[in-house]
Amino acid sequence: MGNTLRVGVLGCGNVGAAVIRLLHDHAEDIERRAGGPIEVTRVAVRERSRARDVSLPSGAFVDDPVAVAEAPDVDVVVEVMGGIEPARTAILRAFERGKSVVTANKELLATRGTELFEAAAAAGVDLLYEASVGGGIPLVRPLRESLAGDRIIRFTGIVNGTTNYILTRMTEDGSSFPDALAEAQRLGYAERDPTADVEGVDAAAKAAILATIAFDLPVMVDDVPREGISWIGPEDIAFAGRLGYVIKLVAIGEAVEGGVSVRVHPVMLPKEHPLASVRESFNAVLIEGEKVGPVMLYGRGAGGDPTAVSVVGDLIELARAEAALRATMIPPPGRATRSLVSLEGLPAQYYILMRVADRPGVLAAIALVFTEHLVSIKSVWQEGHGDEAQIVLITHRAAERALQACVRDLGLIDTVEAVASVIRVEAGQP
Amino acid sequence: MGNTLRVGVLGCGNVGAAVIRLLHDHAEDIERRAGGPIEVTRVAVRERSRARDVSLPSGAFVDDPVAVAEAPDVDVVVEVMGGIEPARTAILRAFERGKSVVTANKELLATRGTELFEAAAAAGVDLLYEASVGGGIPLVRPLRESLAGDRIIRFTGIVNGTTNYILTRMTEDGSSFPDALAEAQRLGYAERDPTADVEGVDAAAKAAILATIAFDLPVMVDDVPREGISWIGPEDIAFAGRLGYVIKLVAIGEAVEGGVSVRVHPVMLPKEHPLASVRESFNAVLIEGEKVGPVMLYGRGAGGDPTAVSVVGDLIELARAEAALRATMIPPPGRATRSLVSLEGLPAQYYILMRVADRPGVLAAIALVFTEHLVSIKSVWQEGHGDEAQIVLITHRAAERALQACVRDLGLIDTVEAVASVIRVEAGQP
Repeated sequence: MGNTLRVGVLGCGNVGAAVIRLLHDHAEDIERRAGGPIEVTRVAVRERSRARDVSLPSGAFVDDPVAVAEAPDVDVVVEVMGGIEPARTAILRAFERGKSVVTANKELLATRGTELFEAAAAAGVDLLYEASVGGGIPLVRPLRESLAGDRIIRFTGIVNGTTNYILTRMTEDGSSFPDALAEAQRLGYAERDPTADVEGVDAAAKAAILATIAFDLPVMVDDVPREGISWIGPEDIAFAGRLGYVIKLVAIGEAVEGGVSVRVHPVMLPKEHPLASVRESFNAVLIEGEKVGPVMLYGRGAGGDPTAVSVVGDLIELARAEAALRATMIPPPGRATRSLVSLEGLPAQYYILMRVADRPGVLAAIALVFTEHLVSIKSVWQEGHGDEAQIVLITHRAAERALQACVRDLGLIDTVEAVASVIRVEAGQP
Repeated sequence: MGNTLRVGVLGCGNVGAAVIRLLHDHAEDIERRAGGPIEVTRVAVRERSRARDVSLPSGAFVDDPVAVAEAPDVDVVVEVMGGIEPARTAILRAFERGKSVVTANKELLATRGTELFEAAAAAGVDLLYEASVGGGIPLVRPLRESLAGDRIIRFTGIVNGTTNYILTRMTEDGSSFPDALAEAQRLGYAERDPTADVEGVDAAAKAAILATIAFDLPVMVDDVPREGISWIGPEDIAFAGRLGYVIKLVAIGEAVEGGVSVRVHPVMLPKEHPLASVRESFNAVLIEGEKVGPVMLYGRGAGGDPTAVSVVGDLIELARAEAALRATMIPPPGRATRSLVSLEGLPAQYYILMRVADRPGVLAAIALVFTEHLVSIKSVWQEGHGDEAQIVLITHRAAERALQACVRDLGLIDTVEAVASVIRVEAGQP
């Protein structure tokens, strides 16, 4: 294993605290994947005395982000404080000292990105920013690396969870915009001043970052025309539904005649469009490539923990680059502490279709078999067609072993002509 | 720009030819992103004399894949020939000569993966395989890099396009399995011998590869229990529909008590599950991480062009590693040859909601405005509520400029009380 990578974290809010906890809780896995330990040595905070849910010595907390960026016991910097200054100055100072930076700061990238990327290139260091768009969704790396061989024709993204939550409530519950906004605020999905979300400013910053990668063209937030959703009424939602559409706020970037168009506005999407079923506060970006066709990336676009996963993914990449490790990461067999388990003991719900003779007592005989094997039945339907009937059952969760024993014994009942199908049932949404 | 990366391609079928074409057609973009040109110097083919839709000198074609792997004018090897031998031997020979390999060969990885990864590690070279699962969908890199800081709890994937196409036909058209299979064969989605697809063998190989990454545990195809879909009947599909489910063939890997379970079988998914709306031959994998929550990656899971994009993405990563380039890839401003264009000239369809006085002649006055600005109306609805009425219009595609002029003039009609909403309409599925 290589040397320890010492991290200075700028900001200890939601995301910063989640990054520190993740590096601590998953330390062993992260060390294996990074080729060495990753350790937080310094944290810049606004109030040094505040109690925080992270296990670091109190000496690690300092109040000057620039001092953290310059500290000799910091090898790389994680900037999760937000805003333009002092984040910008701290990042530039880190570059000057030959330190790479991981940032989640969309506002800064969409305003001063060009300056920062040029400074990183001049210093020969990295500026990584997976967490700046789409929280925990892998977006920057797939666009920049996996799809690097293709030409992007268009991206269409639901990149703001607040407005998607509001539009979902308006669509599914018939709420008005003010009521849906109030509910979003109550649940913590919207801030007290919701302007940046509902007027599309947040989405415009993300559109600028995505467009910069997708089209190799520096796009800043002020270049992105935007419309918000505060004026959308229940009658628009209702008409959209009647016409087969769903209203979503989207960030669009597309190659058009003469150049590239980047913009944020509400749009009516056909109900069968892949983005139409992205509900609640989830985010998703549909990327259309010339050769690859449509690719969609979906997940939680905000929140401390999901965003921290993206930050730590970038940190692991930096650690591997420092250690000059090759990309192949599959550990040789025997290193893993887990093993494969067989299906037999795993619990699942099952759907069972049987063809039976339409005679009294059939259902009782079937029910008895399930009782004997301690498999409980959730629902059952019987449908007659002349002499024959179909019985469909859905079980509660039962072990594969018990279910197989049931199926075997069901086949022995003389009024059961066939156990035609057995299919596992997924319980619900993840 | 750096040195040329010289590529030997093993196999010139669907994927091989697409890789060669992609490297040629997008050469300029790829060179910029890779830090130097990537050039195909040798291609191993079965019949040297066959005509091929690729522009390479005939001397580039040779019939021995091992010779290509060992050729002095080949720096890295792309293996897209499939099967175990001679692909395995050629890859091992490439490693022995210090050459990294990009492969799309799921069968080989899911059978001899452990041997290959150990050989690559011993030789200090890379074995990259984004294309081996999910065709053009970024899956390996997001799992291995973006989510490397998290612990994967579970993945559930629709990873076989043939069976997903068949199940879509059965669900949407009420087809029987044999009829849906015959249609899939007619369209080229299924092979003449469909066993590997419909019995879940192909999905099991992909499940093994994904599980190996997700759980740091070497899983081979023979470790994966599987059930196919050939026995599923129209009555199962119909019952599933009535109960609120859709039947899909899925590859599942999950952390369970005592270890990891990996398997392939049909499952009933609730209709609101993110995988339930993955239709036709599309693939998608839902990954659930401890911290990141659900992440879904969706796209074309097969086909020459999408798969070639994944292969070339891996090649660009290798080229950058050879050139020891840093990860930051945003070009400084001015290098891009495109520019941002304004919304004004862009065409779109529009939905317009107006509140009007319910009097004769209103609609005629409105229609006249659209005619004057050469914006044509696709559909129109009028609904009265006492003295007031609502008119909803959907236009054909029109430039933003013309639409804005319409909206301005509509507001001048004295029977139009308000143009309440204007929302762009997305034409259809990508």
